[in-house]
Amino acid sequence: MQSNAKLFAYNLGGVVPLDQAFLHISDLSIQRGYGVFDFVKVHGNTPLFLDDYLDRFLSSAQQMELQLPLSREELKHTIFLLVQKNGLEVSGLKMILTGGYSDDGFTPVAPNLLITQHPLTLPTQSKVENGIKIITHDYVREIPTAKTINYSMGIRLISQIKAKGAEEVLYHRQGIVSEFPRCNFFIVRQDNTVVTPAENVLPGVTRKRVLEIAGRRYRAEQAKVTLEDIAQAKEAFLTSTTKRVLPIVQVDDTIIGTGKPGDVSLALLQDLIALEEEQVSVAKV
Amino acid sequence: MQSNAKLFAYNLGGVVPLDQAFLHISDLSIQRGYGVFDFVKVHGNTPLFLDDYLDRFLSSAQQMELQLPLSREELKHTIFLLVQKNGLEVSGLKMILTGGYSDDGFTPVAPNLLITQHPLTLPTQSKVENGIKIITHDYVREIPTAKTINYSMGIRLISQIKAKGAEEVLYHRQGIVSEFPRCNFFIVRQDNTVVTPAENVLPGVTRKRVLEIAGRRYRAEQAKVTLEDIAQAKEAFLTSTTKRVLPIVQVDDTIIGTGKPGDVSLALLQDLIALEEEQVSVAKV
Repeated sequence: MQSNAKLFAYNLGGVVPLDQAFLHISDLSIQRGYGVFDFVKVHGNTPLFLDDYLDRFLSSAQQMELQLPLSREELKHTIFLLVQKNGLEVSGLKMILTGGYSDDGFTPVAPNLLITQHPLTLPTQSKVENGIKIITHDYVREIPTAKTINYSMGIRLISQIKAKGAEEVLYHRQGIVSEFPRCNFFIVRQDNTVVTPAENVLPGVTRKRVLEIAGRRYRAEQAKVTLEDIAQAKEAFLTSTTKRVLPIVQVDDTIIGTGKPGDVSLALLQDLIALEEEQVSVAKV
Repeated sequence: MQSNAKLFAYNLGGVVPLDQAFLHISDLSIQRGYGVFDFVKVHGNTPLFLDDYLDRFLSSAQQMELQLPLSREELKHTIFLLVQKNGLEVSGLKMILTGGYSDDGFTPVAPNLLITQHPLTLPTQSKVENGIKIITHDYVREIPTAKTINYSMGIRLISQIKAKGAEEVLYHRQGIVSEFPRCNFFIVRQDNTVVTPAENVLPGVTRKRVLEIAGRRYRAEQAKVTLEDIAQAKEAFLTSTTKRVLPIVQVDDTIIGTGKPGDVSLALLQDLIALEEEQVSVAKV
């Protein structure tokens, strides 16, 4: 259990101390793993790119036929209330919408909404400077465009990732690459084109920003990416809300490019950080 | 929320009134849909085929790398204690093992064990006499041999099932049939051979019993079953702990056999009921 008693959470319609936030075991998340969520990075009192995350959260809910108990404006208001109350410096805010307290343990009813906030640790400088090693696994998420709470496969693979001294696992289906359990994937081709898999992926907010940023300096596109494309790539990196742009230097036994983080990856990371800082400045004005 | 205040549940190490059984929201079932479960039918104080269900529950836990906080004997003891305390006539007993209260919201720690029991409704006589209509959907469960709590797909399909006036959805992958979200599938070929899909299925306890029973009267086998095989079949039925043997008379737009429950299906249902009654008699001696 989270032991930080100073934090507050939104649970079942009210703001409560995090350590007192419980769900009855009839909830469909516990009974059937049924729910959606989203995760926003917060700098001070500013949730970064909040509207993008709300768009995706609402889209996930719709795809899973779950009705949000708050309007979008009420949800936004609740988020700002919680963020102010918790007063964290750099944090992650998580919204979870479950199938609710189901009578028959199967059919969704009135969904339950939870919002939690925790201090956030960004990737260490050493990981950014050295890049990471990843492994691959043949799998496609069931409903790729929705951010469901189903991480059975990703969590089950933790021990394999560790056993191979890697940091993450990249999903592919018969050699066609999609995404990580919690991050998107990019390669940089030899001609500096920045490419991210087009299909069977969650539409990542950081992925979207990086595509925009990359388009200013290079050619940037969503396209089919194969394991063979990775082996031929100049650079590779992952993107996520928490990890921003994190260089990848090894995929299974294949060394990417020079085996060190590439210039394109590092330039995009700097541009993304600048964009985040811009958001915070704008909010402060 | 389950409102039956007279029922008791096992939750986090103790027996408590069901309406007071809660999990903290840091539990990995809520955060990541991570957990396994099993479901046993109980007649009076007798859980039917309990050892088969315990075998499967422990196997699911092992496949998902979750350590049960009780020994098998302790679990059995706890089940009998709860069953006696609740004193229900015909009931379903559910054991859930979650990834526990995870510090980082992703990595499983000490799993949480819950056991609940509810009165059980068997299929109506009318459904048995008339048979049911089902639809099909291209999908294979992620880890078919484990009974995980992940029912994202099954629940998401509820509205499609209803819209088509059907009762259940049968999964297949490119025409090769596997199972229902919560039941196994059988066909009876024109030569009376009873066949159930061999691969990508949960090893159902009722499936196992029906294969045994069928083997006494007919040829019975686990084999590849295609959608085309169904169209050519003499009979079809599903099996589950709750539904026993339930005849299927229509699959999508295809009428099975005569469009009425077949003799083989109904004979197997009678044999299964007899086997269940035998279990209860033995326990009473």
